[in-house]
Amino acid sequence: MPSPADDRRYMAAAIALSGRGRGLSTPNPNVGCLIVKASPDGGRHIVGRGWTQKGGRPHAEAQALEQAMDRARGATAYVTLEPCFHLSPRGPRCADLMARAGVARVVIALRDPDPRTDGQGAAWLRDRGIAVEMGLMAQEAAGAMAGFVLRQTLGRPHVTLKLGVSIDGRIALKDGASRWITGPDARAHAHMERARHDAILVGGGTLRADAPRLDVRLRGLEDRSPRRLLLSRKDAPKGWDRIGAPEEIAALQRVDHLLVEGGAETAAVFLRADLVDRLMLYRAPIIVGAGLAGIGDIGLAELAQAHGRWRMTDVRALGVDRLEVYERVRSA
Amino acid sequence: MPSPADDRRYMAAAIALSGRGRGLSTPNPNVGCLIVKASPDGGRHIVGRGWTQKGGRPHAEAQALEQAMDRARGATAYVTLEPCFHLSPRGPRCADLMARAGVARVVIALRDPDPRTDGQGAAWLRDRGIAVEMGLMAQEAAGAMAGFVLRQTLGRPHVTLKLGVSIDGRIALKDGASRWITGPDARAHAHMERARHDAILVGGGTLRADAPRLDVRLRGLEDRSPRRLLLSRKDAPKGWDRIGAPEEIAALQRVDHLLVEGGAETAAVFLRADLVDRLMLYRAPIIVGAGLAGIGDIGLAELAQAHGRWRMTDVRALGVDRLEVYERVRSA
Ligand SMILES: NC(=O)c1ccc[n+]([C@@H]2O[C@H](COP(=O)([O-])OP(=O)(O)OC[C@H]3O[C@@H](n4cnc5c(N)ncnc54)[C@H](OP(=O)(O)O)[C@@H]3O)[C@@H](O)[C@H]2O)c1
Ligand SMILES: NC(=O)c1ccc[n+]([C@@H]2O[C@H](COP(=O)([O-])OP(=O)(O)OC[C@H]3O[C@@H](n4cnc5c(N)ncnc54)[C@H](OP(=O)(O)O)[C@@H]3O)[C@@H](O)[C@H]2O)c1
Repeated sequence: MPSPADDRRYMAAAIALSGRGRGLSTPNPNVGCLIVKASPDGGRHIVGRGWTQKGGRPHAEAQALEQAMDRARGATAYVTLEPCFHLSPRGPRCADLMARAGVARVVIALRDPDPRTDGQGAAWLRDRGIAVEMGLMAQEAAGAMAGFVLRQTLGRPHVTLKLGVSIDGRIALKDGASRWITGPDARAHAHMERARHDAILVGGGTLRADAPRLDVRLRGLEDRSPRRLLLSRKDAPKGWDRIGAPEEIAALQRVDHLLVEGGAETAAVFLRADLVDRLMLYRAPIIVGAGLAGIGDIGLAELAQAHGRWRMTDVRALGVDRLEVYERVRSA
Repeated sequence: MPSPADDRRYMAAAIALSGRGRGLSTPNPNVGCLIVKASPDGGRHIVGRGWTQKGGRPHAEAQALEQAMDRARGATAYVTLEPCFHLSPRGPRCADLMARAGVARVVIALRDPDPRTDGQGAAWLRDRGIAVEMGLMAQEAAGAMAGFVLRQTLGRPHVTLKLGVSIDGRIALKDGASRWITGPDARAHAHMERARHDAILVGGGTLRADAPRLDVRLRGLEDRSPRRLLLSRKDAPKGWDRIGAPEEIAALQRVDHLLVEGGAETAAVFLRADLVDRLMLYRAPIIVGAGLAGIGDIGLAELAQAHGRWRMTDVRALGVDRLEVYERVRSA
């Protein structure tokens, strides 16, 4: 049996794998799966790795099992979400696949809140004599599948607000010039981040000022350019889908992870509606002074109300710039 | 003989000692001095430590030699600035004191640019058969005695601009409320920083909005509250000295280290005049949105001109807040 520390290590690897499907896997959650087999000499080998593929199929488990072939027999599967149990014309039920492959033990991070599975996948495995453990690193897995989790709990996509800002929080000069605040490393990182989202949104002001392409300009990732959304009261140009208010993101089909790229008014209306889950600020070591502040009026009446809402979860150097990541603190 | 690595370690300690006199030692530089004696068994002991005292006397070397007594004979002295050579009614010449104490070797970080010494202190020691090395960790020492160095080179004090800001760079709400943006740990750190400056300055707007006391409210440091300066075109109230323009700081007597504590217009006029050497931003994990931006109009015409001027030199957590330190990059 793997030790509890081994279990955590393998689950962390499965969670990392799940990240590969983020921004691609809708309408399905971006699940990760790892299959680990003990060898006769007491060592252990990874015999299958999978993550939800583009468009949602194959599922992570199906992919990992296919890789493992008959080595799955007697193995332990680590999966970030409870294996599905609902019948679909698009593919097999993963709980059934696992049982038929002869997996001996299934370690699950998150129970699937989808009512068509919701514990039934685990129960079905247990009924077939398979050891099932649920809840290991559930929080980390939920973070990696944030879009799916928010769809289930709040009925809307996960929203990241990204801005390139100066030390003093400006995103443009008074005349609207915002090229460039950050340097090439930060911009490359931001392009990579685009590929991890199903859609990108900007406000009408940014469309008019910058005519942004919002594509992924990184070699090999060009085809991962996400859908383009515009927040506007006017018609959207060709190639763009319009929403007329931030709340409309809930109705978007196949958008679990949304990246809002400004400008200041758009940032503010999303924040005011409490529709931002994560902030990614690429901060350049420059002072702009008078210019456009990155975030407009969020309707704050007192400083006391501003506290306790955001927690810095990551910070890293990107050339001379720094990426600061903050996450919204929500009491469960 | 101490190894080069030992020399660096002892000099670093002398530089740290010099920090104790910062904000206290004017009109003299805040020098640090360490005297290290080899014992017969081959070990080494620190036999004297000194830093420039309040008002500039005793000098660091005099204090360290007094502590060392006859143990200074044959010892190595580490001193952050060349020992003084000019006659003063206020005390002895340190170069002479060192020679008479029988010190065998003097390691100096920075040559004293004061024309009354400027190499003569070192020459006088060498003439008496004492080994003298000059230049070790000169840059670090210059940083610790930044006020003195800028007085000599630019004819003005070293200026730190300190602001308590939100993620989005605001220092107050629209109605002027700025209590509190940062938490108790950040505020205690800022009070400590006050004690390291000869004077603190705010603008007329901040005086009217906040009526700040600008004192050091830390137990045991109350008497280190610095002089209070006001940037204003109007008369200053009792207990405050007025300046009418940022350039007037050059004429201030006994101010080598100046702390500018805002507000936004004051920050901007100092930056516009290129009179800020260091930024200390206490950043709270809050979003303010519409409010007062921390830095007003600095006259920036193009983004390209904003780059390459600031370098982050330190960042640290203070409770939930973070202190970001940037230093002005000046090509020599
Ligand atoms: N540094 C950066 O990271 C960054 C990123 C983005 C933008 N920028 C800069 O930011 C500036 C643009 O920012 P901005 O604040 O002026 O504009 P913006 O936020 O991009 O767009 C404002 C527009 O959004 C639409 N809108 C806002 N609230 C709405 C609501 N509740 N319902 C429907 N539509 C709504 C309206 O569009 P319509 O007028 O079309 O109806 C409004 O005019 C440009 O200078 C750009 O260069 C910088
Ligand atoms: N969070 C923080 O760290 C922090 C720190 C400080 C202040 N604040 C907030 O900032 C706000 C005040 O900022 P502010 O920008 O309105 O005002 P300010 O910068 O404090 O003061 C502006 C005043 O400075 C004087 N001044 C400016 N330029 C001058 C020049 N070139 N020559 C002579 N005098 C000059 C004038 O004073 P006269 O009008 O007297 O002539 C002017 O009205 C308040 O809400 C305060 O709470 C926040």
